[in-house]
Amino acid sequence: MTMNRYTVTFLPDNKSVEVDEGTTVAEAAQSAQVFITNLCGGEGVCGKCRVQISKGKVAPEENATALFSEEDIKKGYVLSCQTEIHEDLEVVIPPESRMEESQIMTGEAAQETPESGLNPLAKKIYLELPPPSLDDNISDIERVSREIKKKIGSRSLDIPLNCLQNLSNKLRENDWKITATIARDRDCYRILNLDPLDTSAQNYGLAVDVGTTTVVAQLVDLNSGKVIGVEGCHNLQAGYGEDVISRMIYACGKGGLPPLQEAIVEDINQLIDKLTGKYKVPSEQINAIVAAGNTTMSHFLLGLTPCSIRLEPYVPTADVYPQIRAKEIGIHINHAGILETIPSVASYVGGDIVAGVISCGIADRTEVRGLIDIGTNGEIAIGNNEWLVCCSASAGPAFEGGGTRCGMRATKGAIEKISISDGQLKYQTIGNANPRGICGSGLIDCIFELVKNGIIGADGKFHRSLQDTRLSIEDNIPQYTIANPDETENGDAIVVTESDIDNLIKSKGAVFAAIKSLIDYIGLGFDQIETFYVAGGFGSFLDISKAIAIGLLPDIEQKKIQFIGNSSLTGARMSLLSQSSLEKCLNISRSMTNIELSNYQPFMDEFIAALFLPHTDRRLFPSVKY
Amino acid sequence: MTMNRYTVTFLPDNKSVEVDEGTTVAEAAQSAQVFITNLCGGEGVCGKCRVQISKGKVAPEENATALFSEEDIKKGYVLSCQTEIHEDLEVVIPPESRMEESQIMTGEAAQETPESGLNPLAKKIYLELPPPSLDDNISDIERVSREIKKKIGSRSLDIPLNCLQNLSNKLRENDWKITATIARDRDCYRILNLDPLDTSAQNYGLAVDVGTTTVVAQLVDLNSGKVIGVEGCHNLQAGYGEDVISRMIYACGKGGLPPLQEAIVEDINQLIDKLTGKYKVPSEQINAIVAAGNTTMSHFLLGLTPCSIRLEPYVPTADVYPQIRAKEIGIHINHAGILETIPSVASYVGGDIVAGVISCGIADRTEVRGLIDIGTNGEIAIGNNEWLVCCSASAGPAFEGGGTRCGMRATKGAIEKISISDGQLKYQTIGNANPRGICGSGLIDCIFELVKNGIIGADGKFHRSLQDTRLSIEDNIPQYTIANPDETENGDAIVVTESDIDNLIKSKGAVFAAIKSLIDYIGLGFDQIETFYVAGGFGSFLDISKAIAIGLLPDIEQKKIQFIGNSSLTGARMSLLSQSSLEKCLNISRSMTNIELSNYQPFMDEFIAALFLPHTDRRLFPSVKY
Repeated sequence: MTMNRYTVTFLPDNKSVEVDEGTTVAEAAQSAQVFITNLCGGEGVCGKCRVQISKGKVAPEENATALFSEEDIKKGYVLSCQTEIHEDLEVVIPPESRMEESQIMTGEAAQETPESGLNPLAKKIYLELPPPSLDDNISDIERVSREIKKKIGSRSLDIPLNCLQNLSNKLRENDWKITATIARDRDCYRILNLDPLDTSAQNYGLAVDVGTTTVVAQLVDLNSGKVIGVEGCHNLQAGYGEDVISRMIYACGKGGLPPLQEAIVEDINQLIDKLTGKYKVPSEQINAIVAAGNTTMSHFLLGLTPCSIRLEPYVPTADVYPQIRAKEIGIHINHAGILETIPSVASYVGGDIVAGVISCGIADRTEVRGLIDIGTNGEIAIGNNEWLVCCSASAGPAFEGGGTRCGMRATKGAIEKISISDGQLKYQTIGNANPRGICGSGLIDCIFELVKNGIIGADGKFHRSLQDTRLSIEDNIPQYTIANPDETENGDAIVVTESDIDNLIKSKGAVFAAIKSLIDYIGLGFDQIETFYVAGGFGSFLDISKAIAIGLLPDIEQKKIQFIGNSSLTGARMSLLSQSSLEKCLNISRSMTNIELSNYQPFMDEFIAALFLPHTDRRLFPSVKY
Repeated sequence: MTMNRYTVTFLPDNKSVEVDEGTTVAEAAQSAQVFITNLCGGEGVCGKCRVQISKGKVAPEENATALFSEEDIKKGYVLSCQTEIHEDLEVVIPPESRMEESQIMTGEAAQETPESGLNPLAKKIYLELPPPSLDDNISDIERVSREIKKKIGSRSLDIPLNCLQNLSNKLRENDWKITATIARDRDCYRILNLDPLDTSAQNYGLAVDVGTTTVVAQLVDLNSGKVIGVEGCHNLQAGYGEDVISRMIYACGKGGLPPLQEAIVEDINQLIDKLTGKYKVPSEQINAIVAAGNTTMSHFLLGLTPCSIRLEPYVPTADVYPQIRAKEIGIHINHAGILETIPSVASYVGGDIVAGVISCGIADRTEVRGLIDIGTNGEIAIGNNEWLVCCSASAGPAFEGGGTRCGMRATKGAIEKISISDGQLKYQTIGNANPRGICGSGLIDCIFELVKNGIIGADGKFHRSLQDTRLSIEDNIPQYTIANPDETENGDAIVVTESDIDNLIKSKGAVFAAIKSLIDYIGLGFDQIETFYVAGGFGSFLDISKAIAIGLLPDIEQKKIQFIGNSSLTGARMSLLSQSSLEKCLNISRSMTNIELSNYQPFMDEFIAALFLPHTDRRLFPSVKY
């Protein structure tokens, strides 16, 4: 039986793809590399992947009525993950369902050479060897090793078979001139390549932040330490679920692990293609990659089963990952080029946090400092050059635009700032576009303004009796209109419901409770923390005073809170450029104490106490005045 | 254009093979796995590969008249290496052109467990892990490593990616019961495999002697140290030349290296098939191989260019070879199984000698002892637990049946013993068969008897005026008949010519000069050497007193000279069963001083002095009375 094949064209991209009958529109979009938002992993419940069928017919679907208005259904809106293709189709992806390039955070706070000096993971050493004579007739490889050791000291030098094969001719045909590419692996050096003549001028590396949503890669000149360029893309794994948990469920169920590994490898290969094309660097001159990601992403990258990560007692396959040849997992750089994955601390404190810790130098100084990475999980690390503790709390998707009626990622058209003054509500959208939804920072602003203006109480409940044209009650749930239908991109009102606020309070409560638990665990007060670094995409749009005012961040001097952008990428680059930075990562991974909050009663108590605006214990937030 | 294909049938084997038109008979024989002797590497000059065309026609060849009698040409004798196939043929391989199985020396002097106790290169460790809990939620691989380290101590443990992949399921589906296969590599251990449940009862290894002529493999139970079985075969490389130099020339010329590597790998795979079939051991339960060979064979095995080995200043690609996965070079054992190649000392002192040195424990004791391996090269190592020196001298092919008119290898029908008493010559052949030629030990006997009976002088020249029916002169070269035509297998007389004796004196002179040079270099006398061990196939047929009498071996007490059989195989097995033995090999390879004789004037002087029977300086041979 041959399968029928149909063509699906996606607008406005005008990208077409031919697929087998029965493929879903979401799968077709992924094949066409058109990115559709998808929070629930294709379960048909989040409603974020809606698209409009503009030509062709599809079967009506069950979930549609619950998620779409009658109007929408008439217009041809369907859930792309639930809609099978049985004829040629033309599909319009509305802006709210689209993952935008602008979501990719390639920026960092710190940019240049690591503090410990340039000592890259992969080095090229040009050697002019003295030719052998009867008085000096050691073997070819010993001759090479002898000269290398003069340059790197007498560490043990591992020499794989491929470096020996044809070495004899290489040396004799090139007047004993050869370039050795060597890489550090834990306590020893390894020769990756022995190339004829002097190729030492070209030696590149790649720092990669393997994020759940986006993958960002920096091309780095390993000779100078300079960043040549940076590119980002969506994590292709989004097709298997927006968040880590959905993808784990996919990988551990029928779908299996391989498609998730292939997706992330494909992402990295595409970024390599873009970077090498744009900057005219041959990909075979890339000799090392350092990748940082959370524990699950690191497992996906290396093809390790992540299934036990999400089940008590939360055990990953590995926290420390072996240095491998990038080609072992299908990444296209030099055939002998290596890939290091920044080690994790535990199932929910990954290499991204370890990289973040080294990026802001927490482990380098005597002062106690902290790192907060806020996303679906809130990860917190606190310490100094003598000790480090960390924990992770599930914050839910609220800060990333999920779990709320009109939530969206921080992309074009997202309301990122809100103020209410004298009964007047003002908002600002990303790119000054017509509003399409509210992103995390907008939601924080919103809650702050609602409570400050007495529209909601400290418990997050609306004062139902309040006279406010923006306040309405639907299905017995109060909601507040932020943007009226005539202002928005799609003509629907943008509202915040009491349930949304409830979700958001749980999210901020979890993050604060985690910070507080950790601070209590180490027996310090907030005022004893010199600096809190705030990492992640979320950070850059955040109004600190409002984040404090709703009880998300501790009530300390605002100058003590610093945004550091993509610290995972920074840490990966530092480890690429400095062997001692990578060693630090390993030490941090081994020595940082992880407090498992799911088993930690003080956290549960703190969480309950934090489900209030700003907190049930107002003494913790002396500066908050509403 | 399609190539015509013809069938060639080899008798008496009755093996047929189909080949392309233009293929030589020698090549066809190799395809059919029928082994034809070939000293010159297919150059058409040694005449050892002659065969008889019994059906079908071939073109007459240029060299034939020089090498064959008119009678032979009439009978259809041709050189198999020079004869192209242009129609179906039937070919008879005469006994003298056949490589016999009996040439393969699988025997050893020492047989059982190495002195340092059983500590095999690859071990299996069965682990019953405590399942993780919230109080003990280290990663899966750390849990495994923790238990392994309890058993092996706290050495560094290398964990390749493949051991992490699917580990999570393996542990959880098998009640945390797992068997780790670990191998030592220099200073660290490496996990090769993690298998579900308890597989520790089955753990096998292979010791391989990669000889120029034959390849011998022992299957060893790594749990008990017991040898399960041994098999040998001809080195398939013989198709590219009988001796090392011819094969190097082939590999470095048009033919290239790959066929030589493939041939030796094919040999080892065939031996593995034989052993695993015969002893019902699954090949995937073989986890380690230790191979010992001379430097060139080791290069061929690993696919390393051997070309500079034979050119001054005699530099190999490597003396110490990396531990590799056997599958990297196409050997079929466990997919993660390792192969160690015993390190060499120099281009002409290989891993076979290093293995030999550890097999007789020279480096273990304070007494000074020596090892002599006599083949195409004579390799000598002398030393004790504090120092070791070695050298190698090209002896020529005389001891192995080459370079003499009626020389042959020590196989069925070879005259291995000769005595002349009261004018009566008696000989003994291997297998009591009709004589086909004279092997090395027979030639030594022969020379001894000739000089003792005054038939040749101390200079190796015949007394031409002597009245002896066996003495004749052909083309002005005197020759002595050992077997008359009516006694021999093929009806041709077996003779020893003055040129043969000249060659043999050069060979014995080179070996003795090497021993003497080394003894002088270290400043000792022969009487200070406690034991000389004689290794190699040659040794087992040798009459020590006659070897001393012609000046091949030093004139010391005969009980101080011991045959040790295939010491290369013994040393390989010891290294397989004892990590400290392998470490010793590495130390010997690094610390043994090699005297490069080609550049060493004392050797040249000794060589000239030794071109006499027994020696120009008779004081060196006080016991020799002729």
